[in-house]
Amino acid sequence: MTPYVEMSQEELLKEKVALEKEYQEVKKKGLKLDMSRGKPAAAQLDISMEMMDVLNSKTNLKGEEGVDCRNYGILDGIKEAKQLLADMMEVEPGNVIIYGNSSLNVMYDTVSRAMTHGVLGSTPWAKLDKVKFLCPVPGYDRHFAITEYFGIEMINVPMTPEGPDMDVVEKLVKEDESIKGIWCVPKYSNPQGITFSDECVRRFAKLEPAAKDFRIYWDNAYCIHHLYDENQDHLIEILGECERAGKPDMVYKFCSTSKICFPGSGVAAIVASKANLDEIRKQLTIQTIGHDKVNQLRHVRYFKDLAGMEEHMKKQAAILRPKFEAVLEILEQELGGKGIGSWIAPKGGYFISFEALDGCAKKIVELCKDAGVIMTNAGATYPYGIDPHDSNIRIAPSFPTPEELTVTAKLFVLCVKLVSVNKILESK
Amino acid sequence: MTPYVEMSQEELLKEKVALEKEYQEVKKKGLKLDMSRGKPAAAQLDISMEMMDVLNSKTNLKGEEGVDCRNYGILDGIKEAKQLLADMMEVEPGNVIIYGNSSLNVMYDTVSRAMTHGVLGSTPWAKLDKVKFLCPVPGYDRHFAITEYFGIEMINVPMTPEGPDMDVVEKLVKEDESIKGIWCVPKYSNPQGITFSDECVRRFAKLEPAAKDFRIYWDNAYCIHHLYDENQDHLIEILGECERAGKPDMVYKFCSTSKICFPGSGVAAIVASKANLDEIRKQLTIQTIGHDKVNQLRHVRYFKDLAGMEEHMKKQAAILRPKFEAVLEILEQELGGKGIGSWIAPKGGYFISFEALDGCAKKIVELCKDAGVIMTNAGATYPYGIDPHDSNIRIAPSFPTPEELTVTAKLFVLCVKLVSVNKILESK
Repeated sequence: MTPYVEMSQEELLKEKVALEKEYQEVKKKGLKLDMSRGKPAAAQLDISMEMMDVLNSKTNLKGEEGVDCRNYGILDGIKEAKQLLADMMEVEPGNVIIYGNSSLNVMYDTVSRAMTHGVLGSTPWAKLDKVKFLCPVPGYDRHFAITEYFGIEMINVPMTPEGPDMDVVEKLVKEDESIKGIWCVPKYSNPQGITFSDECVRRFAKLEPAAKDFRIYWDNAYCIHHLYDENQDHLIEILGECERAGKPDMVYKFCSTSKICFPGSGVAAIVASKANLDEIRKQLTIQTIGHDKVNQLRHVRYFKDLAGMEEHMKKQAAILRPKFEAVLEILEQELGGKGIGSWIAPKGGYFISFEALDGCAKKIVELCKDAGVIMTNAGATYPYGIDPHDSNIRIAPSFPTPEELTVTAKLFVLCVKLVSVNKILESK
Repeated sequence: MTPYVEMSQEELLKEKVALEKEYQEVKKKGLKLDMSRGKPAAAQLDISMEMMDVLNSKTNLKGEEGVDCRNYGILDGIKEAKQLLADMMEVEPGNVIIYGNSSLNVMYDTVSRAMTHGVLGSTPWAKLDKVKFLCPVPGYDRHFAITEYFGIEMINVPMTPEGPDMDVVEKLVKEDESIKGIWCVPKYSNPQGITFSDECVRRFAKLEPAAKDFRIYWDNAYCIHHLYDENQDHLIEILGECERAGKPDMVYKFCSTSKICFPGSGVAAIVASKANLDEIRKQLTIQTIGHDKVNQLRHVRYFKDLAGMEEHMKKQAAILRPKFEAVLEILEQELGGKGIGSWIAPKGGYFISFEALDGCAKKIVELCKDAGVIMTNAGATYPYGIDPHDSNIRIAPSFPTPEELTVTAKLFVLCVKLVSVNKILESK
């Protein structure tokens, strides 16, 4: 297949005409599809329906420790829920606090608390002139939205196939005391599907930040979210690494069951050192009467243990895998060798990250939209929505049906080709 | 019955000896009872067990508007949950945002947001030298804990049988721009069981605060929590009053189902003007993926409508009423006419507030504790835990069984008598 850049002006013009004709035909279909968010499909929710049966009016709703889950009490989670999520996060239950249904809310609360109360005795960030966060890019828009909401300055750090560029991270956190955190999705990263290498994680644990209240915000959203039974990524456990490096307080880990069972009705958790958790518990006594323990019990009774969760995730993978493969196949078939885009085939998570030619992402997403397919906004994977190369597009294959997905993926590659051909023609 | 103050020295000494003997006998029993918190008893939870059956694996978990409650989406609550809680709060559904399981958490978030982002464009409170709240006393310790946690200065305002002393409230909010809020439990108040009079509510709605970001924090925790079918208090609806007074933004109302069904697994809400809610929604898009919609659906399918909730509350009342009556009877029998304490017989809510002689509350609670009965800490009903008269004690009759309750109430009155007799002897 001839790369576009090697084609003659004439060939390119011919290609352009053909693509435009094709695009107009697709447009006529009046599509109305959404590939913008990492939202599970209905079929993925159906596999968890039996969770609705594990508790009923005859069930004893007392937890292992005898606590009545229906009533007030127990701020930081019932024992068995701590155990389940501790196993999932590869830590001890004593390092876990169970929250409500949204790990995003846990992260928000964590930043909000630092704004008003500081971190383990540090000056509240709201009282500082400048607070900064490092943001590996491309990254997760809702992380960036939290720090933007609180007026925290975000600094882009490039991702590599091994994780964030640690030379940059090490240098910046050492030099600048106003850098208080870094957002990470360390496994099957959003959007690239990259898992941080062992060396990368160890370098994280050995960071020497100038700010004592610097924390690694480790959003392990896809910890057991593999696409394959065999071909899986492995991430080493960072809290243990931090402990061994003598910096147990340097990391907050976040997780939830949102993409394991019901996204809107799951259980979230924070994992951290005892000192960090004690500070959080102090806040919790003020903040809430405690999170929903009946729902915690429902999750534990349904999954039983980590093995149960992992079995369940195989069912999720069986639904997601063909969708990822369909998109990847169309990308390969239609764009392979054309030199107008690159992507990584992820082994888990919820996204495929597409790198278009510089200056093409916005136009591609716009063309898709005009033909009735909503993609994640170009730029969304960067702080402030500004992708300096205007090249990254996040593809979320989970929500559409397989049939819809083929249609959307074909439209997507068509738009990529059309925008790229125009771009190359312009630059000739 | 002779009031203690009218007894002779000799009579008092005789009484003291008799009381001390009685106290030592009770102490020998080795009681271990808790009357400290407004926590429903197990019997009150049992009446809601059928809520666990309304959803099962065969249930269609789509809401009225077609939204799949299992998935992401819908930040501010499903339509039918808004309707249910709107009816309970006597407002339109458009004035309601549904939250998670804890109205305390909603209040915390509301104050926290004001700290970091101000209120409808005002300066974030964290950037101000001084922020103050008015606190009608005695009041709810967890309200005071929130404002204390954020370093907000609390100013006591005396309660009257009609609600807070509005002369004081009107004057203070008009004079002092640093006063940003007032905590209220307007119906069956915690701890006194007082319902604000119509005139009081109307004076609230007509307040002329110096601070534009002043808000009334109206925690209507006991809105349908009557003890009697007939003899009920009525509270007029404040949002409508504020609208009529041209100040629709001046109030936030809070509520939850915590003391209607399961305290740990209910649904909470905030009620406010459109402008206030729009500001909150802006925060919600950043803060969370949305609250648990399956649980919202569970509540709506179980109660069906406000009438269903009110019927349900009659079952709660049937359990609570005899407990309140038992305590009130013992108070009347043992302390009536003795001039060593006063109380109000509430028509709803969760507490009986006891006013001891000045300087006696701490000692009474301590004596109870030494004999194995935990009361709410003396002082807890005041900001910073400081009751200037050391006289208020909150009695929470809900959690003990009826048998336990009689024992604890009898111990309580014994301790009141003993401490009072000593106090009077000392002052002679």
